[in-house]
Amino acid sequence: MKTPRYTSLVERLPSTIPFVGPETAERAIGRIFGARLGANENVFGPSPKAIKAMQDATADIWMYADPEDHDLKGALATHHGIERENILIGPGIDGILGNLCRLLIIEGTPVVTSRGAYPTFNYHVNGYGGALSAVPYQDDAEDPQALIHRSREVGAALVYMANPDNPMGSWHSADVISDMIANLPERTVFCLDEAYVEFAPIGTAPPLDVSNPQVIRMRTFSKAYGMAGARVGYAIGEASLIASFDKVRDHFGMNRVAQIGALAALQDQEYLAETIAKVNAAKLRIADIARANGLKPLPSATNFVTMDCGRDGDFARALVVALGTRGIFVRMPFSPGEDRCIRISAGKPDDLDLFEKILPQALETIK
Amino acid sequence: MKTPRYTSLVERLPSTIPFVGPETAERAIGRIFGARLGANENVFGPSPKAIKAMQDATADIWMYADPEDHDLKGALATHHGIERENILIGPGIDGILGNLCRLLIIEGTPVVTSRGAYPTFNYHVNGYGGALSAVPYQDDAEDPQALIHRSREVGAALVYMANPDNPMGSWHSADVISDMIANLPERTVFCLDEAYVEFAPIGTAPPLDVSNPQVIRMRTFSKAYGMAGARVGYAIGEASLIASFDKVRDHFGMNRVAQIGALAALQDQEYLAETIAKVNAAKLRIADIARANGLKPLPSATNFVTMDCGRDGDFARALVVALGTRGIFVRMPFSPGEDRCIRISAGKPDDLDLFEKILPQALETIK
Repeated sequence: MKTPRYTSLVERLPSTIPFVGPETAERAIGRIFGARLGANENVFGPSPKAIKAMQDATADIWMYADPEDHDLKGALATHHGIERENILIGPGIDGILGNLCRLLIIEGTPVVTSRGAYPTFNYHVNGYGGALSAVPYQDDAEDPQALIHRSREVGAALVYMANPDNPMGSWHSADVISDMIANLPERTVFCLDEAYVEFAPIGTAPPLDVSNPQVIRMRTFSKAYGMAGARVGYAIGEASLIASFDKVRDHFGMNRVAQIGALAALQDQEYLAETIAKVNAAKLRIADIARANGLKPLPSATNFVTMDCGRDGDFARALVVALGTRGIFVRMPFSPGEDRCIRISAGKPDDLDLFEKILPQALETIK
Repeated sequence: MKTPRYTSLVERLPSTIPFVGPETAERAIGRIFGARLGANENVFGPSPKAIKAMQDATADIWMYADPEDHDLKGALATHHGIERENILIGPGIDGILGNLCRLLIIEGTPVVTSRGAYPTFNYHVNGYGGALSAVPYQDDAEDPQALIHRSREVGAALVYMANPDNPMGSWHSADVISDMIANLPERTVFCLDEAYVEFAPIGTAPPLDVSNPQVIRMRTFSKAYGMAGARVGYAIGEASLIASFDKVRDHFGMNRVAQIGALAALQDQEYLAETIAKVNAAKLRIADIARANGLKPLPSATNFVTMDCGRDGDFARALVVALGTRGIFVRMPFSPGEDRCIRISAGKPDDLDLFEKILPQALETIK
């Protein structure tokens, strides 16, 4: 018996993972979190119509899902005013990001992102051996000009930006994004992660232009549609770029019930609007709680509020731990500078009652 | 606007996909199949307890799944008498096969399989640029000695065999498999796909030995447990081999409800036994129908019956089409020699009534 012959890239990959799940933390502390506000899940959940559609479809789970995602693609195409051929369905944005990296990255391929931006993107880039180059945030926001400049400098095959941004909650207007697109270096693909875009003000998303093979936009049913556990994300792009995923994707990888649930969720836009209103109310309350405790909430176009704790990263990390041991699951930015903040997902009133009660206690223990 | 800079491997990959789904065929013929007997799905579906567990869990779909799959792994560890660290949960065997290939294959890496065996394995091997070498079937079964011999000859990093086999339904005894393992070339990993093993006679699966890093065994909830649309597969192996998947897998890629459903399905072994009895009865009836129409059913340790049509591949292909246009979805082996056969999944009595009625009509049109 001998060790398998892993690829040399795999041999060099670290065993670190992008995120530790809340269940892992719960097992460590020996109890369930009283408020789960750390993963930017949407506590308000999906439309009751989507829940019913999924429950009704469960008896048919013996069938594989349609590998062409025909019905869901059709509904999304109508919704966005584009064609099926411009849409890729995948098991969450994470899964699609992995395949996007696989299409474009070999060892040493230059890729650009922001320092402290989505770690799972970095995980996938590193997983294919890409040479990741990260520009700093500017005033707690991703820096479009710096991203484009760096992309040109290194000859990036791929540049990533989330708009609105996670973990800071900040956003740029559609004009700024359109400018980025206009200034993309030749052959650099721009991955525009719009996971939170349904929460953002009108004028955040530039118009869809599916004629440009250099832009791919990521959307999801995990956030505004409240179905993180279902694993349904999608990408919007030019037809040949979208078709290229068929060379590498897991064609029968979608959960059949999730496909059906996403379709039903999409068709209940009224519920979506109600959810967004609830999220906005929760964000206002989180901001109030922050201010009442001497923390400074940052503006947010997402379903979370990032708050400046006014001290250093060690303080914020201690606060995350102090909240966690008291039953409140939250997370925080990773990167020096931004790591003076913690990040709280919009919760239900009960969740926020608990947060309001626990936050001063947690602060008291670490002051 | 310029074409993205795809990797040179991706540029060379074909756009062909492993399987066309039945829904695609239905859209082409303009109606729903009366009997869906082509994808080896388990028409009897999962345990009612699993359905109920999934329906009950649907309201919690707003939460991501536990990325450590702690509860399901624990139940599987108990079930198999191994440890959690010896189990990898993934989105179906297909997804796990993809990651296994990613761990072991770069361009030119030698990999061995059987000609006509599982096309999705080949898809993944090709997708990472592996040099696939295929040995022929012997008497409608995979040829263990030839697989080992070829693996040694080419210095394979990976050799694949399914036991029981798909698409032929044949199987080898545990002794034969243990012999293969004992004779594996140094550092060749043996991927033993046991997707259908719950249907096989006792003595088909060799004892689990999780001390050997050269063997990885694939299991699934898609077949005997009747949950193909849920996408829950798992691999059993030595701890360091299993841990290596953490370097590349999509940690938050599992559907939360599917995790919960699989756990409930596993815990209802009584239902599993009933399902297997129903599948066995269906297989007997399929064999009878075959013989009544002059076709020769082959022995099967799976949930399908492969039948020798006694003519060439063109005849069998015409029969598959003739059945399809009459509302019966079936598939057939791809490879010359074995392609004299068609393959019928175990169906419910209604499905088989329809098959019994349509088969002679279909044969009549192509004789």
